[in-house]
Amino acid sequence: MSIRVTVWHEYRHEKKNKTVAEIYPKGMHEAIASHLRKSPDLIVKTATLDEPEHGLTDEVLQNTDVMTWWGHMAHGDVKDEIAQKVAQRVREGMGLIVLHSGHYAKVFKLLMGTNCHLKWREAAEKERIWVVNPGHPITRGLNSDCIVIDHEEMYGEHFDIPEPDELVFVSWFEGGEVFRSGCVWKRGGGRVFYFRPGHETFPSYHHADVLKVIENGIRYVAPQAGVIQYRNGSPNIKPSLEPIKAEHVVDESIHRH
Amino acid sequence: MSIRVTVWHEYRHEKKNKTVAEIYPKGMHEAIASHLRKSPDLIVKTATLDEPEHGLTDEVLQNTDVMTWWGHMAHGDVKDEIAQKVAQRVREGMGLIVLHSGHYAKVFKLLMGTNCHLKWREAAEKERIWVVNPGHPITRGLNSDCIVIDHEEMYGEHFDIPEPDELVFVSWFEGGEVFRSGCVWKRGGGRVFYFRPGHETFPSYHHADVLKVIENGIRYVAPQAGVIQYRNGSPNIKPSLEPIKAEHVVDESIHRH
Amino acid sequence: MSIRVTVWHEYRHEKKNKTVAEIYPKGMHEAIASHLRKSPDLIVKTATLDEPEHGLTDEVLQNTDVMTWWGHMAHGDVKDEIAQKVAQRVREGMGLIVLHSGHYAKVFKLLMGTNCHLKWREAAEKERIWVVNPGHPITRGLNSDCIVIDHEEMYGEHFDIPEPDELVFVSWFEGGEVFRSGCVWKRGGGRVFYFRPGHETFPSYHHADVLKVIENGIRYVAPQAGVIQYRNGSPNIKPSLEPIKAEHVVDESIHRH
Amino acid sequence: MSIRVTVWHEYRHEKKNKTVAEIYPKGMHEAIASHLRKSPDLIVKTATLDEPEHGLTDEVLQNTDVMTWWGHMAHGDVKDEIAQKVAQRVREGMGLIVLHSGHYAKVFKLLMGTNCHLKWREAAEKERIWVVNPGHPITRGLNSDCIVIDHEEMYGEHFDIPEPDELVFVSWFEGGEVFRSGCVWKRGGGRVFYFRPGHETFPSYHHADVLKVIENGIRYVAPQAGVIQYRNGSPNIKPSLEPIKAEHVVDESIHRH
Repeated sequence: MSIRVTVWHEYRHEKKNKTVAEIYPKGMHEAIASHLRKSPDLIVKTATLDEPEHGLTDEVLQNTDVMTWWGHMAHGDVKDEIAQKVAQRVREGMGLIVLHSGHYAKVFKLLMGTNCHLKWREAAEKERIWVVNPGHPITRGLNSDCIVIDHEEMYGEHFDIPEPDELVFVSWFEGGEVFRSGCVWKRGGGRVFYFRPGHETFPSYHHADVLKVIENGIRYVAPQAGVIQYRNGSPNIKPSLEPIKAEHVVDESIHRH
Repeated sequence: MSIRVTVWHEYRHEKKNKTVAEIYPKGMHEAIASHLRKSPDLIVKTATLDEPEHGLTDEVLQNTDVMTWWGHMAHGDVKDEIAQKVAQRVREGMGLIVLHSGHYAKVFKLLMGTNCHLKWREAAEKERIWVVNPGHPITRGLNSDCIVIDHEEMYGEHFDIPEPDELVFVSWFEGGEVFRSGCVWKRGGGRVFYFRPGHETFPSYHHADVLKVIENGIRYVAPQAGVIQYRNGSPNIKPSLEPIKAEHVVDESIHRH
Repeated sequence: MSIRVTVWHEYRHEKKNKTVAEIYPKGMHEAIASHLRKSPDLIVKTATLDEPEHGLTDEVLQNTDVMTWWGHMAHGDVKDEIAQKVAQRVREGMGLIVLHSGHYAKVFKLLMGTNCHLKWREAAEKERIWVVNPGHPITRGLNSDCIVIDHEEMYGEHFDIPEPDELVFVSWFEGGEVFRSGCVWKRGGGRVFYFRPGHETFPSYHHADVLKVIENGIRYVAPQAGVIQYRNGSPNIKPSLEPIKAEHVVDESIHRH
Repeated sequence: MSIRVTVWHEYRHEKKNKTVAEIYPKGMHEAIASHLRKSPDLIVKTATLDEPEHGLTDEVLQNTDVMTWWGHMAHGDVKDEIAQKVAQRVREGMGLIVLHSGHYAKVFKLLMGTNCHLKWREAAEKERIWVVNPGHPITRGLNSDCIVIDHEEMYGEHFDIPEPDELVFVSWFEGGEVFRSGCVWKRGGGRVFYFRPGHETFPSYHHADVLKVIENGIRYVAPQAGVIQYRNGSPNIKPSLEPIKAEHVVDESIHRH
């Protein structure tokens, strides 16, 4: 069964900074999307901040099974209304993969309920991303239990997130910090996967293992066919399923929900 | 060591509905607060929706260790700004106890990241609240592993919350439903405890065990003295703690965070 | 890709008790296995207590992707050595589904680390199994968010298990109890799913939804191809991946692990 | 309220190895116990492997609120029966702190249900233990969110444990690995805290912050007074709490549990 993927990208750095443009001539989104397009079962589209409605019309949202999200310098330019819609789609079952600096994206903070702070440093240091969850589908196809990235931005703990439902990766940084790099949560009927690497001045989205993890993540958070769906509302269940001894008069004058 | 508690209450039903006013002549908040005041180590204040700033000025917030929250008919009247401030105080370490229909309170939804839907029914049915976590501090002083409430509103699953960090109670309802009635989460440096009972037309906050659980919850979510504090920000950590082999030139023209 | 399933069954009640034999003339294992055999991708075998090595030779274990386990009156007759082997296979990646009275099976207790106590009552009462985790693959194909079983044995909380990694179902019983009926844990590289229904004197394994959940569970806990495998050992990692400033002389006379 | 602590120690290395004996002239247990004795509310005893019953008679066990456990070269010499008794006491509410190489202790493996493997290296390298859970009581009194130990044995992921209920610390090692260094689980009515540092050839139990964490851990896992107790058994609940429509004849000839 095919999975409809929307690779969402801020797409500003590439237009303003020569270093970034050289690494990602068509944008980071195309680096990710072109990898995903190699899989015939993934139907891949892209959307970017500066398109109308950030490329995320209701029609696009309704026809997306999994969205990936990269943003950084322009989180504030994402309209609140659009961020709310994306978050709501996740609750209704859409999968979401939040990448790197997307930790500060409105949609991620809305779903986490925290501020999503962290420590950071740009020193082109080495990162080792360790698998702490063997057997997990997100580790498929990795050659070892440690993904090595020669140069990356550092993110350090405390990472201000709710305790993950599943912790898949933990990073080691040359400069002395650690970070929970691969985390999964459920929100409503949808799964969220946060994956750390991807600073714009380094070619992390040309790294075979990083791309593999993103692809695995997409398959992992994709909604399942035929399952009990998320119910978007709070129904009044009357009459009751089982008989109730009604000794007590209910005051129906107070309506609620 | 004393705990400064603010019992926050919507306080509208009591003013409009005779049934509620008879059960809670001074308001539900006073039923809760008067129980708490029996403990000399709890310094108890109340605050209500219709006070200026809902009684939640910055000074009140800064001087509150644990807040309890009951709201129902007027969630929409709570100013977004105040809800955001309360949520932020939780992340900075304040404990929060959300009661009954507070499941739809802005502050709860902000902290959960979900819509917090549920099923419901007003049929004055029996509720049995079962302890599923023996040894938990929140169960202190209970006479049995089942709190029986003769007449309550029903709340049923699916309760639309993130998987709790700790599940303490699960309810059985006469009419056929179940509900995760006592749930704990951590958000930033603060703990949140949701506790289900407390429909306004029933005397649940005169029930000794319900009051005991609220009191226990307050002690459980209260911030601890001398612990590592939540850091509200994302600092740039330079220089690095450990030496970095700088083979790679970092482009300092891109500033972030 | 096919999944090799071994349906393990104690198979004693059917031989001793007429009621059970009438409900399950070929044994409970055949009721389950015959349903599973309808799926061409499931390669289904059975094994029972009174076969040599309980039907669980090393060869059978090595060629099983997912095992289901039902036991009750003869948990003590399962050899410790076999129970240990099955538990070890789970840690190495095999999926395990523990059914009903299997809560007291040696293999389940070995994997949980708890005593797995519960409350119980045989009163042919009604059970309602509620979905508390919409979107979960284990709910695939259910017609509603509540599986109703007209007559079952009651199991009640406190169910003495570690906090589940995922809670999928919670049961309501006519007689007043609740129970965490569908729970998932990870142990090493393998997943364990406990599913409650299945008392021998009731036809629960002829119930379409119960069979569906077992089938879904098998697909959910099946090992994934190509993932990072569980490492069964504690290797000494020398030389180190990164250089160490060896100011300190290590005493090599103390060997370990 | 006072807490009765039993510091259990293997106490073999100190007798056989000069380096260890110089660092811990009275044994590692005395280094820990002498710190704890500074707190008047902690009633501290020690017990060691080579005492009769390993110093863990039924009377000692019944009069211990929290036990700490360090073992390494002689895990196999701990009698199965004693390990089972300690595990059972945890389930009944006793707190347990497992230190360093205690990851392979029988009692820890019994409670975890896993093999508790890890990677290791003795290279006297630097360890940085990062707080990933601000606000947690176990972090009380730490001067920073990073405990630095100049020379320690390395433990690396994958650490073969069930997903912790609470993750408090993650370690960084100079040689390139990471490790979940501070983990909390609940088993039955009792809490277990694993804390990593403490290789016998380094003076980690003279490190002020390491001692502080152990002390904090003791207070955190100590059983609470007056709470709903763990029930060690599976009672038959008859008659039912709520009436059951008994349309179905129950076959009482099959007895169970």
